[in-house]
Amino acid sequence: MIRHGIRSLKQVAPSIRAMSSQANLTSLNADNEGIAVLTLQRPPVNSLNLDLLQEISKSLDEVSKNKFRALILTSASPTVFSAGLDIMEMYKPDMKRAELFWTTLQEVWLKLFESSYITAAAINGHAPAGGCLLATSCEYRAMVSGKFTIGLNETALGIVAPTWFMGSFCNTVPSRQAEIALTTGKMFTVDEALKVGLIDDVATDKEDAINKCKGFIKKFDRIPPLARAVTKQKFRANTTQWLKDNRKADVAEFLGFLNNPKIQQSLEMYIQSLKQKAK
Amino acid sequence: MIRHGIRSLKQVAPSIRAMSSQANLTSLNADNEGIAVLTLQRPPVNSLNLDLLQEISKSLDEVSKNKFRALILTSASPTVFSAGLDIMEMYKPDMKRAELFWTTLQEVWLKLFESSYITAAAINGHAPAGGCLLATSCEYRAMVSGKFTIGLNETALGIVAPTWFMGSFCNTVPSRQAEIALTTGKMFTVDEALKVGLIDDVATDKEDAINKCKGFIKKFDRIPPLARAVTKQKFRANTTQWLKDNRKADVAEFLGFLNNPKIQQSLEMYIQSLKQKAK
Amino acid sequence: MIRHGIRSLKQVAPSIRAMSSQANLTSLNADNEGIAVLTLQRPPVNSLNLDLLQEISKSLDEVSKNKFRALILTSASPTVFSAGLDIMEMYKPDMKRAELFWTTLQEVWLKLFESSYITAAAINGHAPAGGCLLATSCEYRAMVSGKFTIGLNETALGIVAPTWFMGSFCNTVPSRQAEIALTTGKMFTVDEALKVGLIDDVATDKEDAINKCKGFIKKFDRIPPLARAVTKQKFRANTTQWLKDNRKADVAEFLGFLNNPKIQQSLEMYIQSLKQKAK
Repeated sequence: MIRHGIRSLKQVAPSIRAMSSQANLTSLNADNEGIAVLTLQRPPVNSLNLDLLQEISKSLDEVSKNKFRALILTSASPTVFSAGLDIMEMYKPDMKRAELFWTTLQEVWLKLFESSYITAAAINGHAPAGGCLLATSCEYRAMVSGKFTIGLNETALGIVAPTWFMGSFCNTVPSRQAEIALTTGKMFTVDEALKVGLIDDVATDKEDAINKCKGFIKKFDRIPPLARAVTKQKFRANTTQWLKDNRKADVAEFLGFLNNPKIQQSLEMYIQSLKQKAK
Repeated sequence: MIRHGIRSLKQVAPSIRAMSSQANLTSLNADNEGIAVLTLQRPPVNSLNLDLLQEISKSLDEVSKNKFRALILTSASPTVFSAGLDIMEMYKPDMKRAELFWTTLQEVWLKLFESSYITAAAINGHAPAGGCLLATSCEYRAMVSGKFTIGLNETALGIVAPTWFMGSFCNTVPSRQAEIALTTGKMFTVDEALKVGLIDDVATDKEDAINKCKGFIKKFDRIPPLARAVTKQKFRANTTQWLKDNRKADVAEFLGFLNNPKIQQSLEMYIQSLKQKAK
Repeated sequence: MIRHGIRSLKQVAPSIRAMSSQANLTSLNADNEGIAVLTLQRPPVNSLNLDLLQEISKSLDEVSKNKFRALILTSASPTVFSAGLDIMEMYKPDMKRAELFWTTLQEVWLKLFESSYITAAAINGHAPAGGCLLATSCEYRAMVSGKFTIGLNETALGIVAPTWFMGSFCNTVPSRQAEIALTTGKMFTVDEALKVGLIDDVATDKEDAINKCKGFIKKFDRIPPLARAVTKQKFRANTTQWLKDNRKADVAEFLGFLNNPKIQQSLEMYIQSLKQKAK
């Protein structure tokens, strides 16, 4: 196991065909090097409703099925990566749909956080709450500089980031900074995010962010993919184990939260404020 | 869940009356903004004996009962925040009292570490061992500059910080630095503590430390308190779970340690050295 | 528990005789202060085969039996600390020997990682994979500057660092940096290793590295050894518990991996490349 041997293990690239598929709310495009780009395109702000989550989930399956070596996650919006969970799935919800909504979110996170393929986020806009969750589920983050912010700001809305949101965040941000950020609902500027390790690089624009993601993916050119995948999954097992052990309880907690009149009142106030702003 | 919505959730402050209560060894004063200051005042060095711990425990209950939004912990001594556990509770102890002593300490820590209200420590003097435990149980620490030191220095006295002391410390200090500090019994200067994250800010004096604590508390002005509290408790659940699962074993370990002749001998040597110094 | 008492607990050094023992593949030398130096000397690169691991295991027992207060681990090679696991124990293995090989490695790690005595590594050469494991099992690392590198580069060889290798690494390196290093199979230069905390100090040569180790050991001169040992073991319990709970499954995973034709093929390619290089 001497390091000088590394060069001898040149990776044979499997033959991969470029492909492109277009769904309603996402598009998936893979180049001939096996790097797929999944673009979220649910205007105006890529709010994660059930339909968008289901499309993301299917796209992740397609990446696996096609044995793409890497996935880059980005947004079609010029200002928002993803605004997080769609509040309309939580306000006066149909409980059956709400349950499906939450289990789909769990699935998307598990697929992304434990993926065998390499994952990177080209964060080309704001990434609050669920948007930050998607970004921290990847293995690398390049964020476009500007006035964009990123963070788990759930408390600011009167709600609570689940344990696995926290686990995903803490896989990246040191514990001390994570606790303050989560309790204060902190949204990090790009510079702050870089300093604390919440993002890995700053990009000038979306294209540059995607190129930086490709640079990260290139680091694995000589690394056998199976060893890489198992290493990632073992490393992240502590974080995923909690959800695997508590999926039903986690759904029950979410549904209980939706049944709480105070929460519904907070959501109503919030929706009113959005309408006010829209005028 | 877009960030622009944060401003709309302006927090309605519940009507809170200022209050002041004075016990033997502590005083509790709350202003009309719901910020309580708990002052330890057991001369000369706020050693945590059973009586002081019981008063702290009652004060924490009072903070909860009165729905104060925040607690600032500080000391009446000009040089010592708290010298830690009172060695006289451990030297040739009555075992029934020793058991009550330890369970009270467990309770104080759980109440403080998992409190719903905001907690901050204005560390206006030395904070070794149990003094450091109290400080790290809070969510924020401002320490007065000068020759004061802080740390879990149990090994230097021949004893061992329990697992939950370590958990409290590691919630704040990175693992690598924590291991060296705990095994060497390191007492950090104010500058060292700031650098490693054991404290968050340096203050010029006690008043400034309390003001800095109030500045931290102010960060939560717009954060709904329930979401904040549950987020904190979820974040800290890993650390508290151990004690909840092992309370009896933890008491038994402490009592076993008191029954160890070598430990009693160390404590006797230590007490002699204190008497020598007092002359 | 006031800090001023520390000085009173001057440690009475037990009477220790200097000793020296020489086995085939290691030598163990203790000075009259109870500091033992274990030198790995299996040319050319201290590959950890069954015989070397068994000798290390016996040496660790001897350190315990003789109640030495500290162990410094170093290498007789001028360029390699240890090249890691001997690939010949894994290529077309006798399965009974392979099982003994792996359980011996588990034992060595547990003995070293949980030792009562103080441990330090004087890393005087490359320390990839298993070499890095030995180094991170110690409590302190001084590495000789130069072109040497250190890291868990298993993925680069198409294999996977077990959970406890990762735990040992993460006891030292922050989570974010650890994940990238482990998945990319990163070998750190001395400067990079220092920056990320993978090593604690840079030394000019082997002698200087050993002196720096002695400087670290000196920090414990006034710390009662039992309190120190129990504190270390409690602190590391999270990391060791996994292996204690999963020893058989961990062996089974290793043997299953040896039975995988793809792995055998990777190993064969690697051995060919080494032979090529040797010419």
